Amino acid sequence: MKLNIAVLAGDGIGPEVTAQSIKVLKAIALEFDHSFSFNYAPVGAIAIDETGNPLPEATLEQCKNSHAILFGAIGDPKYDNDPSAKVRPEQGLLALRKSLGLYANIRPVKAYDTLLSKSPLKKDIIKGTDISIYRELTGGIYFGKKEISADGDTASDLCEYSRVEIERVAHLAFKAAQSRRKKLTLIDKANVLETSRLWRKVVKEVATSYKDIELDFLFVDNAAMQMILNPKQFDVILTENMFGDIISDEASVIGGSIGLLASASVGDKYAMFEPIHGSYPQATNKGIANPIASILSAAMLLDHFDLNDEADLIRTAVDKSLALHITTPDLNTKYDNITTSKVGDFIADFI
Amino acid sequence: MKLNIAVLAGDGIGPEVTAQSIKVLKAIALEFDHSFSFNYAPVGAIAIDETGNPLPEATLEQCKNSHAILFGAIGDPKYDNDPSAKVRPEQGLLALRKSLGLYANIRPVKAYDTLLSKSPLKKDIIKGTDISIYRELTGGIYFGKKEISADGDTASDLCEYSRVEIERVAHLAFKAAQSRRKKLTLIDKANVLETSRLWRKVVKEVATSYKDIELDFLFVDNAAMQMILNPKQFDVILTENMFGDIISDEASVIGGSIGLLASASVGDKYAMFEPIHGSYPQATNKGIANPIASILSAAMLLDHFDLNDEADLIRTAVDKSLALHITTPDLNTKYDNITTSKVGDFIADFI
Ligand SMILES: CC(C)[C@H](C(=O)O)[C@@H](O)C(=O)O
Ligand SMILES: CC(C)[C@H](C(=O)O)[C@@H](O)C(=O)O
Repeated sequence: MKLNIAVLAGDGIGPEVTAQSIKVLKAIALEFDHSFSFNYAPVGAIAIDETGNPLPEATLEQCKNSHAILFGAIGDPKYDNDPSAKVRPEQGLLALRKSLGLYANIRPVKAYDTLLSKSPLKKDIIKGTDISIYRELTGGIYFGKKEISADGDTASDLCEYSRVEIERVAHLAFKAAQSRRKKLTLIDKANVLETSRLWRKVVKEVATSYKDIELDFLFVDNAAMQMILNPKQFDVILTENMFGDIISDEASVIGGSIGLLASASVGDKYAMFEPIHGSYPQATNKGIANPIASILSAAMLLDHFDLNDEADLIRTAVDKSLALHITTPDLNTKYDNITTSKVGDFIADFI
Repeated sequence: MKLNIAVLAGDGIGPEVTAQSIKVLKAIALEFDHSFSFNYAPVGAIAIDETGNPLPEATLEQCKNSHAILFGAIGDPKYDNDPSAKVRPEQGLLALRKSLGLYANIRPVKAYDTLLSKSPLKKDIIKGTDISIYRELTGGIYFGKKEISADGDTASDLCEYSRVEIERVAHLAFKAAQSRRKKLTLIDKANVLETSRLWRKVVKEVATSYKDIELDFLFVDNAAMQMILNPKQFDVILTENMFGDIISDEASVIGGSIGLLASASVGDKYAMFEPIHGSYPQATNKGIANPIASILSAAMLLDHFDLNDEADLIRTAVDKSLALHITTPDLNTKYDNITTSKVGDFIADFI
């Protein structure tokens, strides 16, 4: 297969972890006789520095002309504490999601048997956890109208949802549940929010086309608790943009490291693959950034093109690196000198 | 001291747990020679059944004529899954908060040494955790304009904040930090929300009056992760309404049971005390509901009137009941027949 992949490595540790997934994808191409080309384009703080725009026109064009996008990370602390900054790196990521119509963000959360002891949660709580989170990604309070009064003393953010926005991601989540354990949990705050009541109504209607799926509902506050008390109760989770942001980061503690969590952001036309961790500026260029989340995002990319054997081989290689303690310091209690790049080398060589 | 206390026991397990805190408050009155009177008034689903209104006018009057309010729980599943229900029990609680101007919700989260093993988190992660969460309670997306289109296919919720709303709760939180470990963490989503950027700006300004307090900022997604990875890093947390709802319920896992967590909702004129757990309808009238959260809310009520010795005596009695395993089944691994009422009796007798 021939794939043009746009590489948006972004800020902080983004470039170094993305370099490892490219290494791995090249090994796959060699092994399975595919042809992958990689086209680099700037996004985020680095793009602001170069062009003043966190998502330059040329970068967006590059994405639209590619089969898939491999994304690194975005964000720089120099913008976070400046509430008056007009341009922020995150706008690049949000604009990308919106412009490409990437309305579903899929985040698998798994407890690896070899890493059970790394989690702050007890082993018996997490062992066997296997969740797939479907987060709506182009609507809600992220994209509603934002206002700040002239005197700067009142501000607002509008959370909006329409039936169509809910239906399309719900269908993806129900389909995923069909190929899994056939359970779907909608997380909302229907006892307070009008948008949540719309979510509940529409999702119930969509559910009538998936009679084999057990559907249940959880208020987001309770869900934040249940995720820690008993994560095994979840199979597929479906939720709106902001709740999905919070719940999926929370769920990352189950795997023992956020450095393991991959995600896919898909729409009807485009698809982007990225680790869920951020740009982690303190770690930049120290060789300590865990590349596995990015490498597993590359595996999700392959799955997206039905290259399942290829994706499975990456996952086997990752399991092997975990089992042999070929991992960065966040996970490693045995060796203290395994760098980002060495993990990438090991996984690529294995392939 | 003479105190008129309005008792709004509400739905589900609300009445049975509240009955225990009244028992305990009566024991305190006897022991310390105070005069507490209790005036019952309906709220929530039970008030809807009786009057059609989740917060009847007479109940609100009762609250306004009392020194403090003891609140039970609210909510009934028959409303949760009916997105078209025009009247919902939760509206009673929200209207109460708004009408009484209870803008700050204070939720202490503590790891009890005797209960460390009950938490899904590992002992070394939680031991020593002592957090005080200040959640803004009368603003944000809870109270902003809600709209649903005529065809029912689009909905919206507006999140709004003004400088004053942020300042008043921020002052309370900074003051609390001064009498604690002098650290305050603001949780927001300033990389996405305009309201969060206003929070960050105003809280930084307020901080200039509290130079002894170390102020830091955390995005809500990261905070949801940090709460589990390393809860000991937190002292006072300050956050807006919806994030506070989620983060404080999540934090409840640290104590081993949500049945232990009390809260105070205070404003400039009125104050209300309630367990953070909900109405837990499945448990109603089975004698299994843990009354400790409600009893500790009564202790917060006493603290509010500077009856600190009285409040401390309640807390000592609670510690004793935990140490002796006089607890409901959610916490008890030793005896299986300790009911809600027996826990109340033990604590009242101890006093
Ligand atoms: C960087 C930020 C805008 C983004 C989000 O909130 O969506 C990130 O947290 C994520 O989850 O991808
Ligand atoms: C019942 C509900 C409206 C309420 C809230 O969301 O504020 C509850 O969860 C709480 O935290 O007191």
